[in-house]
Amino acid sequence: MSKKVGVVLSGCGVFDGSEIYEATLTLYFLGRAGAETLCTAPEREQRDVIDHSTGQVVSESRKVFVEAARLARGEIRRITDVSAGDLDAVIFPGGFGAAKNLCDFAVAGANCTVIPEVEKIVLEMHGQKKPQGFMCIAPVIAARVLGSFSPELTVGDESDVSKAVEEMGARHVKCGVDAVAVDERNRVVTTPAYMIGPGIADVAKGIEKLVNEVLKRA
Amino acid sequence: MSKKVGVVLSGCGVFDGSEIYEATLTLYFLGRAGAETLCTAPEREQRDVIDHSTGQVVSESRKVFVEAARLARGEIRRITDVSAGDLDAVIFPGGFGAAKNLCDFAVAGANCTVIPEVEKIVLEMHGQKKPQGFMCIAPVIAARVLGSFSPELTVGDESDVSKAVEEMGARHVKCGVDAVAVDERNRVVTTPAYMIGPGIADVAKGIEKLVNEVLKRA
Repeated sequence: MSKKVGVVLSGCGVFDGSEIYEATLTLYFLGRAGAETLCTAPEREQRDVIDHSTGQVVSESRKVFVEAARLARGEIRRITDVSAGDLDAVIFPGGFGAAKNLCDFAVAGANCTVIPEVEKIVLEMHGQKKPQGFMCIAPVIAARVLGSFSPELTVGDESDVSKAVEEMGARHVKCGVDAVAVDERNRVVTTPAYMIGPGIADVAKGIEKLVNEVLKRA
Repeated sequence: MSKKVGVVLSGCGVFDGSEIYEATLTLYFLGRAGAETLCTAPEREQRDVIDHSTGQVVSESRKVFVEAARLARGEIRRITDVSAGDLDAVIFPGGFGAAKNLCDFAVAGANCTVIPEVEKIVLEMHGQKKPQGFMCIAPVIAARVLGSFSPELTVGDESDVSKAVEEMGARHVKCGVDAVAVDERNRVVTTPAYMIGPGIADVAKGIEKLVNEVLKRA
């Protein structure tokens, strides 16, 4: 039986949604390992829309679910229609969307709130002892939701972000872009990806390991 | 000296722009092989905007260059600022954008016209005997621009598309998703990718080979 892995998307594009390469490489390594994937995203307005050619906010509105569907080639399910019982594991790619649309870490830092439909699935997966992978900035979601369980995780080097995840109750470990941090107790696997970069072949090394470590525990 | 490879994008999303997985995997395999990549796209309005969660056209307008910048993490150059002299090779990912925004094959079939800034670079690369890779539906661009040189290429199985590329002067060869067609004389490498699919791990096999065959000739 192949493992069924949820991939939680937050839009489509590093500056206002999911980091495209992180999401695609996650799906690639999962597919290559024979896992079944289920892309999912919340029905929300994006916090903002960024012109990726200039980095500037534009006066447009886009929906997280609709843009995430681009990254999923249309094969996507609303996160309210997915429960931990459907999945053997879940993975959160990064990108600013993880910190703008799945929670408000981008504006609130350590005081952030995770949207309820994402909080629910993270808590359910944790309660069912199923593995969860978080990459790039997405570990802030694990820190916020699972902070009372003191999860050990990485956002790469020490930084304002690593300080914030510690404020939320996580233990931060430094980690290279080609490596992963594994919290066996909480079944949380993290890798820095584009928190460090610099290139797609670099982040792919850590993402491949994250996928393998998640699948091993699924 | 690392090889410099242009990747020509047509937006961001399979139904109205570049196929995201094809573009990302191209950049991944190029990066892993040590090549330098240069993403580029034309300054044009998209032919249409598709809601990828429903498949329906929506009344929105988006610019090819701005959306392609999402796929390039903002590191992108206007195609009018790129010439064959800057590059050792060029690769065209697929997606409907290749047939809607880089040419009008999606509506005109074998009577299609390639936009002048793309036609120019394909002709220049061909004239300078530099390799070019085309995947998925993008070989229709090679067929149209290089038809008088009878390029040998694949769009997968025999189909209306394969008939159209032959009408434009190309010789079509059947090819599996895990393989490539190589036209040594014209230095054109093609792979069916999502013309066949079905999954990301399947198309990756052909794309990896295409990247390697292109780099070998660069």
